[in-house]
Amino acid sequence: MGLIDSLKKGVIPSSVETVASYESKEIEQLIDDIINGHTVIPANNKRPNVRSTAIGRGLKTKVNANIGTSQAYKDLDNEIKKASCAIESGADTIMDLSTGGNIDLIRRELLKKFDVPLGTVPIYQAAALAIERKGNIVDMTTDDMFDAISMQCEDGVDFITVHCGVVRTVVEMLSKKGRVTDVVSRGGAFLTAWMVHNDMENPLYSEFDRMLEIAKEFDVTLSLGDGLRPGSIADASDHAQIAELVVLGELVKRARDEDVQVMVEGPGHMPMDQIEANIVLEKRICDGAPFYVLGPLVTDVAPGYDEITSAIGGAIAAMCGADFLCYVTPREHLGLPDTEDVVRGVVASRIAAHAADIVKDIPGARDWDRDMSVARKALNWSDQMKLAIHPDKAKDLYDENKTSDDCVCTMCGEFCAMKVVAEYLDSTIIETC
Amino acid sequence: MGLIDSLKKGVIPSSVETVASYESKEIEQLIDDIINGHTVIPANNKRPNVRSTAIGRGLKTKVNANIGTSQAYKDLDNEIKKASCAIESGADTIMDLSTGGNIDLIRRELLKKFDVPLGTVPIYQAAALAIERKGNIVDMTTDDMFDAISMQCEDGVDFITVHCGVVRTVVEMLSKKGRVTDVVSRGGAFLTAWMVHNDMENPLYSEFDRMLEIAKEFDVTLSLGDGLRPGSIADASDHAQIAELVVLGELVKRARDEDVQVMVEGPGHMPMDQIEANIVLEKRICDGAPFYVLGPLVTDVAPGYDEITSAIGGAIAAMCGADFLCYVTPREHLGLPDTEDVVRGVVASRIAAHAADIVKDIPGARDWDRDMSVARKALNWSDQMKLAIHPDKAKDLYDENKTSDDCVCTMCGEFCAMKVVAEYLDSTIIETC
Repeated sequence: MGLIDSLKKGVIPSSVETVASYESKEIEQLIDDIINGHTVIPANNKRPNVRSTAIGRGLKTKVNANIGTSQAYKDLDNEIKKASCAIESGADTIMDLSTGGNIDLIRRELLKKFDVPLGTVPIYQAAALAIERKGNIVDMTTDDMFDAISMQCEDGVDFITVHCGVVRTVVEMLSKKGRVTDVVSRGGAFLTAWMVHNDMENPLYSEFDRMLEIAKEFDVTLSLGDGLRPGSIADASDHAQIAELVVLGELVKRARDEDVQVMVEGPGHMPMDQIEANIVLEKRICDGAPFYVLGPLVTDVAPGYDEITSAIGGAIAAMCGADFLCYVTPREHLGLPDTEDVVRGVVASRIAAHAADIVKDIPGARDWDRDMSVARKALNWSDQMKLAIHPDKAKDLYDENKTSDDCVCTMCGEFCAMKVVAEYLDSTIIETC
Repeated sequence: MGLIDSLKKGVIPSSVETVASYESKEIEQLIDDIINGHTVIPANNKRPNVRSTAIGRGLKTKVNANIGTSQAYKDLDNEIKKASCAIESGADTIMDLSTGGNIDLIRRELLKKFDVPLGTVPIYQAAALAIERKGNIVDMTTDDMFDAISMQCEDGVDFITVHCGVVRTVVEMLSKKGRVTDVVSRGGAFLTAWMVHNDMENPLYSEFDRMLEIAKEFDVTLSLGDGLRPGSIADASDHAQIAELVVLGELVKRARDEDVQVMVEGPGHMPMDQIEANIVLEKRICDGAPFYVLGPLVTDVAPGYDEITSAIGGAIAAMCGADFLCYVTPREHLGLPDTEDVVRGVVASRIAAHAADIVKDIPGARDWDRDMSVARKALNWSDQMKLAIHPDKAKDLYDENKTSDDCVCTMCGEFCAMKVVAEYLDSTIIETC
């Protein structure tokens, strides 16, 4: 029995109670939101011990970190280490996007070693197998695609990205109108190539019922991928992107009719002033389905700093209602991230998520800032380090140039505004100095 | 003859022509904006060769980098190196905030070595001298304050931050209402302490005419500091902050009446959803004066990553109309920045500025993104490196894990979406592979 089905029958799994408590949310409201599809709790029924993590309406904005091998970097241990760093840095979920080496082994190890919800993009493995066995991605069969989906769900993955909205009419629109960067989603690219080569409809759309059957069997959450997400500012919110969103809206409804949990993925590269419209549109067309955004990256020109371009866009998106931020690392557009990139990516996304949670009035969000500022005012450095979003980093930077005067930092020294004002305006502070 | 005075008399200095050309702006419009005070070109009349840099309406959003010694770090060469790195990374202006070592020498060396507009905060030197000579900041005299201002202007600084709005009524309001972080501006703190201790009005306000005389003599641009800027999310947009802004609005008018160029400084720490209101308010109350913001930092909890918290706030602020972003480095709240922090701070602010310029439709802004995306689509890596906002960083990350296949990067390898789609959808691309 799936989560929605359970709740409809009045059976409340412990995961829902855990989430209600963690999110300071009334359980009745949370149950309604899950039944109505405004909130999801990705958890494969083969993974009873997965950390209960909810994504959706009125909840803390969540952060996902992508890890996974490529053909150039296939080392299992390294990916395990990246996943571990991501989780330690505060990622709520992990997606394994492996395309190189022993893809099955990596996924199974991740499922064994970590308890956060794990997502995958099964078409990647189907494509890798097609190249291995048939020499070309476009020669994979519909069964190859669904076999990869089935196997990964059987293994226990909690949510899967499926690019069901890349349908023929949408691809035709893309070809007709043209774009600066065409298709930048790998899954979207594979399916576009496949459809063009085989002159057939996207099987993930035409056989969506088969997808729903698998999702129901394992209670896997579908994350409807945006295969035509804009890969440049110039392509943002264009015909193809919005046409695909409309298709996704249709599929959200079909998933809900079968009590399958579903969320929707979004852009991509996008100028700041289009972000709100995109969130409003997704929420309307997909009837409040949780929105999982990659970025948005608010400029194309900053390779090496795309954790920042996406933190800007992600913060605005989350403020406007996006529920789930996929991190972007500094090495996006340049290569596969290393461990340090992963940490930077997670922290940048968490900053964006938290900045939005302040505005969304998520319980506890403002308290965290207040506690930090109280510690700052009191020149209580140990509390400041503890409260920092990434304590290790804050401590490293602080320790690097700490002086003999424990009270102030090296920026202002005895000209510290906190200290000067405390002396003349408010002598009750500076407890620690 | 000052810039505004000149323009009113129909004499157009070459700086105005340089700016009009660089900004792709009609010169008549630019002249109107300068005369009306909506745009400033900070340039001391003792510095004829300063780079012509305009800040204001419809212009590229500019970025300032703060450098300068503290009592713990007094090395001149190091600050020169930081200034050099900041300018190489694209800072439009530099502010020297030195409070340690030979403050005169540092300022004079910066003025000699670099051609970007240089700003200072003269009260810092007045305070340092007061401690040296009298043992306490609060013992400085009004003349000490104005002597520091005169001397720095005489040396050639192009703009000065003066905290004229920290007046008694505002400080009383602060005391009455209370705040989490009271005063976090150093200049604001010195003046607050001085006013409380001496039971006198802020001389920078009560003798504002004297300030205007000095500014006129050297054609120095006044940057009206926000001594009561919020230092925490909890204090944002409070009584004291807005009361000070009202005072600054009054002073903007007085400066304009004397043909003195003036801009206004703004917050600080601020939740994302208050940023737009603050910009609208500044533009209204200060009658369109250029707005120079520090951050805003959209959360208090990220020491070690405040280049990101401020890039988020700065991008939103600039999108809403802020003209000038003061960078914040990762080491803000932890210590004096090093060279690497300076570069990260400048790049993060430039990203924020450019993301806003896209939205503001600043001439050329979108073209840069388009050029980058065309290079990306063509898998033309050398153009991508050249077009990157910080080419060295992009190149370092790319080179670190480049493979034998020059065409694709290590993230996707042969699964590169660009490559796959090019093969099936649009065979005219991939010129370089």
